Order: sequence, then C-alpha cells, then structure tokens
Amino acid sequence: MTSKKAPTMKDVAREAGVALGTVSKVLNGIPVSEKNKLKVEEAIRSLNYEVNTYARGLKMQKSNLIALIIPNTTNPFFAAFAYYIEAALYKKGLRLLLCCADGMPEKEIDYLNLAANNKVDGIIALTYSDIGSYIPEHLPIVVFDRFFENPSIPRIASDNFAGACLAIEKLLEFGCRHPVYIRFHSVFPGESDKRKEGYLYACEKYGIEPDYLDLVDSNYEPAVLKEFLKQHKNPDGTLNFDGVFAHTDYHGYMFKNILQEEGYRVPEDVQIIGFDGINLFGNREDGPVISSICQPIDRLAEQCVEILTSQKDSLPPSLTLLPVKYRYGGTTRE
Amino acid sequence: MTSKKAPTMKDVAREAGVALGTVSKVLNGIPVSEKNKLKVEEAIRSLNYEVNTYARGLKMQKSNLIALIIPNTTNPFFAAFAYYIEAALYKKGLRLLLCCADGMPEKEIDYLNLAANNKVDGIIALTYSDIGSYIPEHLPIVVFDRFFENPSIPRIASDNFAGACLAIEKLLEFGCRHPVYIRFHSVFPGESDKRKEGYLYACEKYGIEPDYLDLVDSNYEPAVLKEFLKQHKNPDGTLNFDGVFAHTDYHGYMFKNILQEEGYRVPEDVQIIGFDGINLFGNREDGPVISSICQPIDRLAEQCVEILTSQKDSLPPSLTLLPVKYRYGGTTRE
Repeated sequence: MTSKKAPTMKDVAREAGVALGTVSKVLNGIPVSEKNKLKVEEAIRSLNYEVNTYARGLKMQKSNLIALIIPNTTNPFFAAFAYYIEAALYKKGLRLLLCCADGMPEKEIDYLNLAANNKVDGIIALTYSDIGSYIPEHLPIVVFDRFFENPSIPRIASDNFAGACLAIEKLLEFGCRHPVYIRFHSVFPGESDKRKEGYLYACEKYGIEPDYLDLVDSNYEPAVLKEFLKQHKNPDGTLNFDGVFAHTDYHGYMFKNILQEEGYRVPEDVQIIGFDGINLFGNREDGPVISSICQPIDRLAEQCVEILTSQKDSLPPSLTLLPVKYRYGGTTRE
Repeated sequence: MTSKKAPTMKDVAREAGVALGTVSKVLNGIPVSEKNKLKVEEAIRSLNYEVNTYARGLKMQKSNLIALIIPNTTNPFFAAFAYYIEAALYKKGLRLLLCCADGMPEKEIDYLNLAANNKVDGIIALTYSDIGSYIPEHLPIVVFDRFFENPSIPRIASDNFAGACLAIEKLLEFGCRHPVYIRFHSVFPGESDKRKEGYLYACEKYGIEPDYLDLVDSNYEPAVLKEFLKQHKNPDGTLNFDGVFAHTDYHGYMFKNILQEEGYRVPEDVQIIGFDGINLFGNREDGPVISSICQPIDRLAEQCVEILTSQKDSLPPSLTLLPVKYRYGGTTRE
C-alpha cells in the first residue's frame, strides 16, 4: 500500500552487520550471541521491519495472536481485565484478538476452533457459557475464575475465600454487629463461589448468625433487594442489620442507593463492603465505587499471560490464587 | 493440536455436493448461485470447517482482521465503543485486534504498519496521539472524532455542534437562566471542539452572556473546578449560575460531587447536563451517570465498520455526523 518498499530480512542483516541466517534465527527465537541479538533487534527497530506473519504462520505455526474471550468490555471489571491483558501481551510481542461473547457460546466456540487450528496461539477465557466440552485437550488456554470439568485447564483467580473473611472482619472492626451477605451468582461453578464459603466460615469463627440473600445473577432486580430490606426492618423502622457484604461492587452500590432512597444513612446506619474494587470512569484517581475487597486485576491479567505463554516449557499449576485487599470507598466508617 | 483431523475444502465440497471450485469461490467471495452458496455455508457449519487463513493471507492478502486503536478500555465511553465495534465486525465475519495505546504513539504506529503491510485489513482509530504523518495514503482507515490533516481520511463523529445547542436549550427549558460551560479538551483538533462552537452559538441565539472554563484535558483536577465555583459565588453564598453544560459526563459528574460537597443541591440549585451518555457499570438498565447529551455509540461503531468495509467499492464521505439526543439522568428538573 505504501509507495516506499518495505524493508526485507536482507536489509535488516545489512543494517545489523550480521549474516542473514542470524536475522532468521533471532526472528524464529533460535539462540544467537547476546551481542548479535541486540544488533538485530536494533536494526529491526530502526528500519521498522515487519515480519511477514503469513509466511511465518505456515512455517512456524505461530500467529503471535492470543484470543481473549470475555462477556463484554462495558462491565468495568471486564473492561479493566481486557485492558491489562492487552498490556501484558504487548510486552511479550503478542497481539490481542478480542471476542465479546455475552450470551453467544457459539462465538466462544469459534475462537476455541481458531486455537485448535493454530490460527491463534492461545486463549484467555473469562466465560459464563457452557463450553467445557468444546475445549480440546492440550489447547493452550487459561481460564479466569471459572471451573471446568477438565482439571488440566489452568485457572487463575483471586483468593475469594480469604477476601470474604476479610470483608466480615473489616465490618466487625468498624463496629458492625450484624453483617448480612447479598449474593447474586452465576449458574456455572467458579472460584467466586468461595465468597459464600468464606462468609459462612467467618460467621462461625466470629459467632455471627448467617443471614444472606442467595440468588442466581439473572434474578437480580432492585425489587429483590427492596424485599430483603423490608424483611429486615424492626417494628420501629430501624434495621436488624448494620453491615452488608455484597458479592460484587455493583450489587453493593445498588443496595446503597436503595438504602439511601429509604432514608437510611450509609455508612452511619449501614456499612457496605463490596467485592471487585472497580473504579468509576476507570480512572484510578477518581476513586472507588464503594468500599471493597479489591481483586488485583492488573496482576491477574499478567498472571494469565505468564501462565499461557509458559505452557510449552512447564506444566502450569491447575489453580493460581492471588491475594486481595481492602480499600476504603466511602461506605464504611474507615 | 486436536487428534481429530481437521476437515479440508474437499470434505466441504463432498458434504455440500458441489464442485471443489464452487467451495473455493464461496470462500473467496466470488459469486456463485444462491443455492450453491447456501449449500456450501451449511457444509462449512456442519463440519466446523476452518479456512486456513495463513494460506489465504498469502494469496488474497486478506487477514479478516481489523485493528481498533483506542486509548484504553477502562474509560466507559471507549469501553462501549470497543464493544460495539467488535459486535459490528463479527456480523461481517471480521475479527478485532485490540490496541490500547494510552500515551504510547509508537504502539499506534506499530498497528498502522501492520495495516500498511496488509497484516490487517484496516484500522479504526480513536486516538489522541500525534500520528497524522504516519498514516500512509490509501490506507484503509476510519477515524472517530479526531481531525487529521489528510482530508481523504474518513471521519465519523456525533453532531457535537447540535448537541451543545440542545444542552443549552434543555437547560433553558428546565428553568435555567445562567448556564455556564466547563470544558476540558484534547490538544488535538477534533469534532468535539464543536461543542464549544455550539455553546457560543446558543448563547448568542438566546441572549446569554458566555461564561465558561476552557482548559486542556491534562490540566483537569478537582481544584480547578473548586476555584471556578469560588469565583461564581455571590456575597450571600448563592451562585451566580444555575446550570452547567459539561464537556463530558465525567467532568459533569465530578462537578456535581463538588457542588454537593459544598452544600449546593443538584438539580434544585444547579442543573447539570453532560455529554456522552455513559452508564454506570455499563448496564443500560442501571441508567445514566448524569443527565446528558448522548452519543449513539452503537451506531457510531456500526458506521465506522460500514465505511471501512465499503472503502474498496466507493469513496467514503470525508465526514459522517450522527445525531445525538438528550437523556434524563437525575441532574436536571426533567
């Protein structure tokens, strides 16, 4: 398309002052001396040399493309995850093929086929579809949060169990005596189910009577939270709970609005801690949506890329959990 | 990678009951009878046949990949734009290569080079980098909002001028008498600059004294808005404005928080209309951030894809503007 002729591998060799074979070795990841490697890389940069990926694809079966399957990019958690995955791939010279699969499992299967046929080098999947049986053995794939039947699929997640315990401990520390839990969960099993286990464990540990709402995600609507609130009102209008652990920041934020609409003060009457650690507008400095147990989204993304790209050399751990932390966001007394 | 042998073009021909040449024609977009086309498409689906894109790439110079250059996916407007671009591409059998280029022009240039070398079929760019001189002539590219020196680059944008007029008209309709404008803008010229032109036009039309804050985006910080507020206070503590047109929803939301922190009521004391129409949490049903002039993000994305994919057949319009509309979001009296 450009009138200027694109530089060839020969041009790179001339510029670097090395043999053509040395350039080829560097491009194909075959070891050469560090000195020559640097020379070639410098020449590639200065000439703006582009490897012909089609020809390489046929020969090496490498596309340098990684597909990210994600429900959408409009949910702020998914948006941040996609952002950090792209950044982590770019650092490794890989490019991101984006698949937003919200409610379209056939779209996810398309991308699994691409990987099975070596059209992409691997898959990173954050999925709520029933695609387990479509994942071929030995496909380069890592999965975020979700549990699949095939135990050889490496999974990355936050430490949801510890996070739920931490949420309850923080609420108690800030003066709550009756924290409740509101949960809206996917029908597919995943690591985030351990938030409930963590809540129940913390209740037992600290002598709290468990009191929670537990529904599948698709049943979420404000009316459900309003009904929960109604059932927890004392005859004098006060509430018989003073803390909320919300399964996600989203649900915590929605509950906050409902509480405030009904005249309860947050955090004076009710303190709320969510889970995820998302930011309004995606800008970190603009702060959190609510007080939250934050998933380390950047490190989760880096870990996905790390494990995916090291699969050829070593057997990845079947489950990698990263630590979470508490962050103040206006809905707690600290 | 899979043990099962992948189906070949021959298998498709056999399954469809047509000649091999017919399959090849369908795959390469060469017209055949509608009946045969349907047969081949059905066979491709039932066999789960994957075209070998490497071999095709060499022959046809088509990758079926479109690169989207965007600052990030964490800003909700960009997140929604990426989401709708992906959906529009998928409908046309194209895949999205995601490039988040926040502050890294060299990354954008990488992707421009990919397009120049036919490694991707085209580029959709939403960019705030100084990359104009790196865009080769005749590169298949469409640009959102941003103005480049090369007038042959097709641009898509919302009707920002009309949107700004609409914002002022709505504020007046809802009882404002002194609307001000707060603007934080990119250093690069683009269609969104017309929000200011529209504001000034509306001021003249309705006999309002223009009163605005106009800074480059990188100078945004809450202190700037607090100072603007201070300068607009009457001796009795009331404000000498009663309406705000904010250049973006983000800045309008930030100003709303500052006004409320200082004890002013929104919308009772001050009404605010932003620009963009973004949603908290990206879920449409959860409603807007503030009252806003909404950009039709879904249609803008579709239009980008439409114009990019029709470039071979016809000369695209150099500028396509899509209409905006007002949406209530809690910060106005209607």
